[in-house]
Amino acid sequence: MELKDLIDTRGEWMRGEGPDADIVISSRIRLARNLAQFPFLTRADDSVRSEIERTLHRHVVDLSLGGQISYFDINQLEGIDRQFLVERQLISRELAESHGSRGVCFTRRENVSLMVNEEDHLRIQVLHCGFELDECWQEISRIDDLLEERVTYAFDEELGYLTACPTNVGTGIRVSVLMHLPALVLTKEIQKVFQALQKISLAVRGLFGEGSQAMGDFYQISNQITLGNSEEQLLRKIKDVVPNIISYERKVRQALIKESRQALHDKVSRAYGTLKSAQSISSEETMHLLSSVRMGVNLGLIDDLEIPTVNDLFMHTQPAHLQKMRKTSLDSADRNAARASYLRQRLALPQDRTDA
Amino acid sequence: MELKDLIDTRGEWMRGEGPDADIVISSRIRLARNLAQFPFLTRADDSVRSEIERTLHRHVVDLSLGGQISYFDINQLEGIDRQFLVERQLISRELAESHGSRGVCFTRRENVSLMVNEEDHLRIQVLHCGFELDECWQEISRIDDLLEERVTYAFDEELGYLTACPTNVGTGIRVSVLMHLPALVLTKEIQKVFQALQKISLAVRGLFGEGSQAMGDFYQISNQITLGNSEEQLLRKIKDVVPNIISYERKVRQALIKESRQALHDKVSRAYGTLKSAQSISSEETMHLLSSVRMGVNLGLIDDLEIPTVNDLFMHTQPAHLQKMRKTSLDSADRNAARASYLRQRLALPQDRTDA
Repeated sequence: MELKDLIDTRGEWMRGEGPDADIVISSRIRLARNLAQFPFLTRADDSVRSEIERTLHRHVVDLSLGGQISYFDINQLEGIDRQFLVERQLISRELAESHGSRGVCFTRRENVSLMVNEEDHLRIQVLHCGFELDECWQEISRIDDLLEERVTYAFDEELGYLTACPTNVGTGIRVSVLMHLPALVLTKEIQKVFQALQKISLAVRGLFGEGSQAMGDFYQISNQITLGNSEEQLLRKIKDVVPNIISYERKVRQALIKESRQALHDKVSRAYGTLKSAQSISSEETMHLLSSVRMGVNLGLIDDLEIPTVNDLFMHTQPAHLQKMRKTSLDSADRNAARASYLRQRLALPQDRTDA
Repeated sequence: MELKDLIDTRGEWMRGEGPDADIVISSRIRLARNLAQFPFLTRADDSVRSEIERTLHRHVVDLSLGGQISYFDINQLEGIDRQFLVERQLISRELAESHGSRGVCFTRRENVSLMVNEEDHLRIQVLHCGFELDECWQEISRIDDLLEERVTYAFDEELGYLTACPTNVGTGIRVSVLMHLPALVLTKEIQKVFQALQKISLAVRGLFGEGSQAMGDFYQISNQITLGNSEEQLLRKIKDVVPNIISYERKVRQALIKESRQALHDKVSRAYGTLKSAQSISSEETMHLLSSVRMGVNLGLIDDLEIPTVNDLFMHTQPAHLQKMRKTSLDSADRNAARASYLRQRLALPQDRTDA
């Protein structure tokens, strides 16, 4: 499979299905693992890095991950292809921007990805659309077990899994849920959510994880602590809190509909109108407007658009996706024009053209 | 004829035809006249006002003004109907908001209107779409002569026509041209135009004349001085300066097209998109967006819309027009919703429905 083939398919997190998909875009679990026989990457020279990469490459492509899998040597990829993988949530920004031997293995369905030589030797990620953490947990445990049959992880009886950064020591798990919370943002109620999450040591991040800004009203809720609790306890914490946020967002949406339906309808319709008519539009404005439109579709204020199409637009209007679709490198101004042109074209088409 | 019949026809200034109609909406001349046998209105009691109104009413409806004419007793009209006439440029705000006996006589084509008991006993107005001052002058001279055969104007050998306000003494003429200058506004070059006009004692006003704000990039250029020059000299001054402003606006439009075509296209398209999609929109925002769209149509950046339709929208989205179309009184919020609904409906329709 070539990277460009991904453009025409909808990755796992774009499918717009699964439980509570109106608010929960995707559920994700990742495990940080290191091989016992090698030093952490901060203390590994280039040849050791390469050896780690070769070792893990051999093992991960051999796993039964479900369906067709691909392995890419990140070092061999052009910048735009790395960015493309970041946009698809298949690799982290850190892996893209790092150096030396490193790679990623992922399934055609884009629900499983294994990053080699990111911060740790291995990062395993399983993602499901909608609110489906149990399924993610079952799947990632299975993959983790399969790997443990082949390699020896750095593990301490007392501390648990050892990781490059102390914040991941113990379980090495990060459980995260990507949520779309436009009504809480609009009413500024989101601040209360942040405060409540902070009190129970849960983190709130933007679409692209650590250090990224929240864009288009998307927030990732995840655990900060990995030590001292079992994986099941950490999972339970997120599983308990997310339904509260979902119902809070729904309640505020209904209140908005009830108390200021016309203002909301106006906001949503104008956003849709701008996306259909702009001749030049930035990535940030696109995210912002698509966020309004997504809420509008979910609330029945827009009736000629489907959520999977909106998700496609979120994905395809990102810089690397645009350039891969156009098969050329574009500067910022040209991307803004290409983005506007793509949006006009997609939004003028009948809805059955959702799978290209 | 009833006032509501006017809704379905396009008044003279909305026709969008005539010389330089891309920039000059309309040319207008008005004459201020008073009857010698009566005192000025500031010194007339109610019974004298009524007598003046009766006298002039009798004479004006008897003139040969071309086509069907109507006379309305402003005092008998509801507030919304007065506002309706203001919006159509058939009467001034002053006449609408004044009190006592007063009226207006106008032609079905809306190119001639005669206001009785505005600031002066009589205000004669002739309007042509496009830049056609000579035609206005011929027409208004004819009407003035016809009237002078029937009544005796207050006239002084030395001063000329006597008027209620000294600023109109002499010729009593106001020559004005309504121009659409979006490119000069966008580039802030309009300030230079203002300064140049001020030096030669020409006034710049908004759409509704004296004291009104410029809205939607519309400006009325008119003479300030009425005394010491002949009508022909005053006319000549405006006729000389307007072509310079026209070519200035055209030059700046072409420069914008050349240097920032995409930004201009984007601005115009977004304005069009917002008008087609808003669920609530104020009169001011509508004017502002229609102004962009009008320039877009004239520059070929919008190709599925005609200028007369844009002119219709300017007219019909005004408060009194909206309420007369809906046949009900609407508060501001309801007007904003009705305006948005009307715009969406008109802009979704094929272009041949321009004359309702």
